[in-house]
Amino acid sequence: MKKTSIVSIGNELLNGQTVNTNTTYLSSELLSIGIPVVSSYTIGDDVDAIIRAFNLAVADADIVLVTGGLGPTDDDLTRQAFAGYLGTELQLQAELLDRLENFFKKRNLRMSEKNKIQAYIPAGAKVIANNLGTAPGIMAEVKGKLIFALPGVPSEMKRMFAESVLPELQRFTGEQAVVVRKLRCFGAGESTIAELLGDACKRGRNPLVNCTVEYGIITLHIIATSRDKDTARQMAEKKEKTIRNTLGELVYGTAEQCLAEVVGEKLARQGKTIAVAESCTGGTVAGLLTDIPGASKYFTHGWITYSNAAKTSELGIAADLIEKYGAVSEQVAQAMACNARKKVRTDFAIGITGIAGPDGGTEQKPVGLVYISVDSDNGCDTKRCLFSHGRRSIRLRAAQTALNMLRLRLNI
Amino acid sequence: MKKTSIVSIGNELLNGQTVNTNTTYLSSELLSIGIPVVSSYTIGDDVDAIIRAFNLAVADADIVLVTGGLGPTDDDLTRQAFAGYLGTELQLQAELLDRLENFFKKRNLRMSEKNKIQAYIPAGAKVIANNLGTAPGIMAEVKGKLIFALPGVPSEMKRMFAESVLPELQRFTGEQAVVVRKLRCFGAGESTIAELLGDACKRGRNPLVNCTVEYGIITLHIIATSRDKDTARQMAEKKEKTIRNTLGELVYGTAEQCLAEVVGEKLARQGKTIAVAESCTGGTVAGLLTDIPGASKYFTHGWITYSNAAKTSELGIAADLIEKYGAVSEQVAQAMACNARKKVRTDFAIGITGIAGPDGGTEQKPVGLVYISVDSDNGCDTKRCLFSHGRRSIRLRAAQTALNMLRLRLNI
Repeated sequence: MKKTSIVSIGNELLNGQTVNTNTTYLSSELLSIGIPVVSSYTIGDDVDAIIRAFNLAVADADIVLVTGGLGPTDDDLTRQAFAGYLGTELQLQAELLDRLENFFKKRNLRMSEKNKIQAYIPAGAKVIANNLGTAPGIMAEVKGKLIFALPGVPSEMKRMFAESVLPELQRFTGEQAVVVRKLRCFGAGESTIAELLGDACKRGRNPLVNCTVEYGIITLHIIATSRDKDTARQMAEKKEKTIRNTLGELVYGTAEQCLAEVVGEKLARQGKTIAVAESCTGGTVAGLLTDIPGASKYFTHGWITYSNAAKTSELGIAADLIEKYGAVSEQVAQAMACNARKKVRTDFAIGITGIAGPDGGTEQKPVGLVYISVDSDNGCDTKRCLFSHGRRSIRLRAAQTALNMLRLRLNI
Repeated sequence: MKKTSIVSIGNELLNGQTVNTNTTYLSSELLSIGIPVVSSYTIGDDVDAIIRAFNLAVADADIVLVTGGLGPTDDDLTRQAFAGYLGTELQLQAELLDRLENFFKKRNLRMSEKNKIQAYIPAGAKVIANNLGTAPGIMAEVKGKLIFALPGVPSEMKRMFAESVLPELQRFTGEQAVVVRKLRCFGAGESTIAELLGDACKRGRNPLVNCTVEYGIITLHIIATSRDKDTARQMAEKKEKTIRNTLGELVYGTAEQCLAEVVGEKLARQGKTIAVAESCTGGTVAGLLTDIPGASKYFTHGWITYSNAAKTSELGIAADLIEKYGAVSEQVAQAMACNARKKVRTDFAIGITGIAGPDGGTEQKPVGLVYISVDSDNGCDTKRCLFSHGRRSIRLRAAQTALNMLRLRLNI
């Protein structure tokens, strides 16, 4: 099996200013195509240290991915270190210079002298095109090992990795074509999903199905490998179909989609509107929904009725009802959703009430207890949930569960 | 100058599941006491690879900080690797075993046989107490270099670093006592603050003042070094006073405080209440405020009046006013805050309206334009802001600016 090592370059990674999310991203992508990362080195802006890291990484792995240090300033030294490692000199690439000059001309900007260094790459190395910024990447093959240097800016790095590195890796790992599809699931734990999928998740299968989890969202990576791309694509599609059949409504989306995006698309497509009445989540559901560009097409009203008085004055919930069942109850959640919808005549409304903690829990109503209601013309559903892992996690999981309930309503 | 190298251990760091925030945290803490991190190695759960990383780190630096791999399961191998690096054996520590057994007894849990391994440390090494979990840390001094191994769980790692590692580092860096104080600022850019502070921020000063920035929040680290702790503390306090005098209300808090926490404390202490009326931020201000435990003491009502109809129906804003000035205008922001406060009789109210983008901007009212009003008995202030860097950043910066305006009102 081929292995990768990652080298991250930049003082900002060693002084606490920047969290190294590039390594996490690349690790996940590489694992998904079956080329695991075995080591990762982070060093500052120093030519000798970078060359040393190149040597360590090449000793560890077949493929070395370097990020950072390709900018135009004096402390961007990856270019020089790459040449030093190869034992060659930097050479001006006329084509790169043209491209750089055009980049600035198009934007009506003057190109600084400093930027010219970005038109140089080590003799014998190849250019990796950067369609988003000024820093081209560099690629070289040394004794059967592949070294790629990409900029540290995440958006540029990700695009160049997808456009230029992934295809190279497929060539490098033999005659194989690899197709990866991601399915995003919500509503069941990792172990339940693994159980439902059975043998599909076993190691060594083709397509291989890997599973990662983040804040209750489960991502299935379907990795199909074959001699040619078409066959691999067909295999991945077939496996996706099988998994979708098995998991049914647990699958909510593909690629990098979040729940709010999927719910938003459905609302927009169906021409429906939504209002949200939140207590314990304090605006989290509205915040997730309105984080999506164009949310104003379907999101119109939201209330954060944090106090009992607010529930009564803004949503007309009878004080008697709150007194009888408590503010955290099925009845109040339901009244929040129904009254909100009635008041502003949206197609859907969500009501949430619960105890986010750390205080306020009792034996009957512990911290983490949340009631979530979704109301529409088809009636009102209420779910009783018990979340854990602290205030933030309770609020976020409650909000996501609400969005998921709405999604299922919109699946009709 | 002393240097540090960090070794992070765990397969989860190399398969994309976990972002390595421990290294970022430690780098920032170490920089703040003047012991910069020069390299960072991440490897999987493999004894030989860990020993190799120990050797690399010891070659790079005077202090080596290792995190992860101290749990009770078979893939937790830092203990064994540490012994291997030292060329010694693991030895049972009777005291550690007692402590472990007590840990489980107190929680009415049965201790698994697996946990016993956590009572072993390499011969010749010292135990670092863990008051939050079962994994003790390990410390050893080799040829004048200090090696610390801490658990990977961030909460445990941070506490043990503060309680046990920092004091050791102070001993190790000579006869010096180091006192660090952090000041958190909002309302001006990094360069403005540096300009205001003048020489205080220059390298080589004592106290040293370092500056880090995250989402508009500027953290000043005041690092005072002296022969004895009392003198260092006095120096840090004196410098803090000078900086506070210079920056005035730009300083909003200390240590790890966020704006919502400081605002919440002030509201609670003064017995005041707050309501929030949001358009473009869509619940972000309410979300930040209610993220703080105990927010129900002062936060009562929130509205997300995303549509014009919602602004009229929920907050009684005249349709004429919206038509005349536009939904994104000083007049509407002001009406949102004033009407919200009048409606529910809170002491303060915030109104926010703007264009978060990516669409909806015009030449007169571009994407990023946000009006923020804060209303109280002392009148209504409105601020016109122009934020950038995309929808999320615009929304978050607008929300933080609103909290900061509220903070300044509460300073009276």
